Amino acid sequence: EVSPVDFKTSHETYTFPGLVNIAAFVPDLTAQTTDDFVEATKASLSGGFATALFLPVGDNTRIVDQETLEIARANVSKTPYSNFALSITASPSNVKSIDEELEANVKSLFVTFNGSSLDLSVHDVAAHFGSWPVDKPIVTNAKGTDLAPLLLLAGLHERTVHVINVQSKEDLLLISLSKAKKLKVTCDVSIFALFFSKEQYPEATCLPSAEDQKALWQNLESIDAFSVGSVPYRLAKELNKEASARSGIEEALPLLLTAVSEGRLTLNDIQTRLHDSPVRIFGLPDQTQTNVEVVMGRRAQVGHGGARKSKVWSPLEGKLLNGAVHRVVVHGQTAFLDGVLGATLAGRDISSTT
Amino acid sequence: EVSPVDFKTSHETYTFPGLVNIAAFVPDLTAQTTDDFVEATKASLSGGFATALFLPVGDNTRIVDQETLEIARANVSKTPYSNFALSITASPSNVKSIDEELEANVKSLFVTFNGSSLDLSVHDVAAHFGSWPVDKPIVTNAKGTDLAPLLLLAGLHERTVHVINVQSKEDLLLISLSKAKKLKVTCDVSIFALFFSKEQYPEATCLPSAEDQKALWQNLESIDAFSVGSVPYRLAKELNKEASARSGIEEALPLLLTAVSEGRLTLNDIQTRLHDSPVRIFGLPDQTQTNVEVVMGRRAQVGHGGARKSKVWSPLEGKLLNGAVHRVVVHGQTAFLDGVLGATLAGRDISSTT
Ligand SMILES: [Zn+2]
Ligand SMILES: [Zn+2]
Ligand SMILES: [Zn+2]
Ligand SMILES: [Zn+2]
Ligand SMILES: [Zn+2]
Ligand SMILES: [Zn+2]
Ligand SMILES: [Zn+2]
Ligand SMILES: [Zn+2]
Repeated sequence: EVSPVDFKTSHETYTFPGLVNIAAFVPDLTAQTTDDFVEATKASLSGGFATALFLPVGDNTRIVDQETLEIARANVSKTPYSNFALSITASPSNVKSIDEELEANVKSLFVTFNGSSLDLSVHDVAAHFGSWPVDKPIVTNAKGTDLAPLLLLAGLHERTVHVINVQSKEDLLLISLSKAKKLKVTCDVSIFALFFSKEQYPEATCLPSAEDQKALWQNLESIDAFSVGSVPYRLAKELNKEASARSGIEEALPLLLTAVSEGRLTLNDIQTRLHDSPVRIFGLPDQTQTNVEVVMGRRAQVGHGGARKSKVWSPLEGKLLNGAVHRVVVHGQTAFLDGVLGATLAGRDISSTT
Repeated sequence: EVSPVDFKTSHETYTFPGLVNIAAFVPDLTAQTTDDFVEATKASLSGGFATALFLPVGDNTRIVDQETLEIARANVSKTPYSNFALSITASPSNVKSIDEELEANVKSLFVTFNGSSLDLSVHDVAAHFGSWPVDKPIVTNAKGTDLAPLLLLAGLHERTVHVINVQSKEDLLLISLSKAKKLKVTCDVSIFALFFSKEQYPEATCLPSAEDQKALWQNLESIDAFSVGSVPYRLAKELNKEASARSGIEEALPLLLTAVSEGRLTLNDIQTRLHDSPVRIFGLPDQTQTNVEVVMGRRAQVGHGGARKSKVWSPLEGKLLNGAVHRVVVHGQTAFLDGVLGATLAGRDISSTT
């Protein structure tokens, strides 16, 4: 599927099918004035992602009903640089109010745990599992003590669950055992969690320990997908650096390509986890004439190129990575080339596809 | 199965088959000098239980290997007033050292969580589930955040699990859902948890809230068995009262009989949960000529009779209960009658039966 092509002198270009940013984090989802969605779709495209599936939980905002969904949709529809989809958050009180229309207009149900009093009880999760349509995925950020009840209930209700941002070997073990027993569970790992650890940033709570990180690398075959997620945003916040809807998106693919150049990953590992599995797990339309060309072996500096308007901190700032996004084609149109976004907005809303 | 017989004047006698104290708690399991086992089997018999299945976790002692099992067995074998069985505790380190001989000599594997650093990890539990023989039960006191991983792993490994001392409606919901999906899970409720609540004893941490207690009563059909367990002992300790291996055992059946007289339970509910289900869950030999005669409607004072040697505190001290144990027959011999233990020790070790 991945086709090497000679490109320029000593560099090689590879063309991936349209990659998917499956857990795009937007801090401000529902303010009338936010440009977070615009920034996130711009960054996605610049980072090589033709599609962004937005998490319905922001920094202090959530999509939980028709009203919040409409505001978020209005926000992202203004300037959809990439394809996008919106989802809805399961709350303790909205199990009854999520009607068929609302279900039809979102990609997935997000079952979130933040260790806060807003968290769902076992009763709430069971109720949502009982009423969410079987053909739409359920996504969760459950970890540690929240993960097992969720997997148990998913199995009991025969539901498909995707776990984002797995960070510990204990959680990965539960997921692996569940998969071995044919439970319909999939998972992703945040790309930052593969490259940065607690030991490097002791102030941060959003990163795995070096030991857990090692377990993630050792069990790549159990990891269906890679994501960006909220980890880069939270890392910046926790280090008191500038954080935004762009945080970490443009570094994601270059980090993975660098790992390929070091022999830690294959290009096929990337395609599986950023295209094939996302398309399968989220029932995405597999768009033709949508692809991304990357250049291997071209040392590119993070933050380089004209794509960035705002200055956003990156743990890789000034560092050279061994791979870069060269061109992104969406629906036959060149949407990004050599650091510059195209003039035409080729992105489409794919929230309703199943 | 329960046969009413006229007895004396206005009282009625019922005869149950031999009842089972399925989670008999002994504070001191492995001291060479303990008389806790003697007291516990005496109290069991006096409380109407022909058989006591001992928990392998005491106050600060555990049965975890051949050595501790032999000490405990020597202790209980001295004076076995009731039938008894011993079990073994799963520890983080003994998954390899529990060999076939040890497995054969114990009734069940006890997977315990105390919220301490000795607690089992998901890895440990998975390893024990992978190696424990399929024809022997696994028993757990897992609650709250420990329960779901345990049920999940039990399902994944297709193991039979019995959950003791369920106290919350959340836990009962998980168990009920698991049963509905044909997971091989059973549970019991501590008899004290049906009659005493946190609201009555705010200092105590071992009792359910009144709300949870109500849920236990409302969901009796999901509760396979009743137990005594460690709740009465812990309640006494937490209230700074005298606690012992006898705590709560003799009050158990009179409390349940009083509930029958109030119409909250039937005699059949009791027989199911103190005989039929215990025999089935724990694969006990169903002994003939072993039964207990109880008297309904005879107001008996707790602590009355000659069975008690030591003074042990009870929350029911001085209170009148509306039912009492009249006679216990074990293997054809009258082992207890009108408050007095028989001279012959009729109890047998049934640890190895399956
Ligand atoms: Zn609840
Ligand atoms: Zn349900
Ligand atoms: Zn595709
Ligand atoms: Zn170029
Ligand atoms: Zn572990
Ligand atoms: Zn296993
Ligand atoms: Zn019987
Ligand atoms: Zn008599």
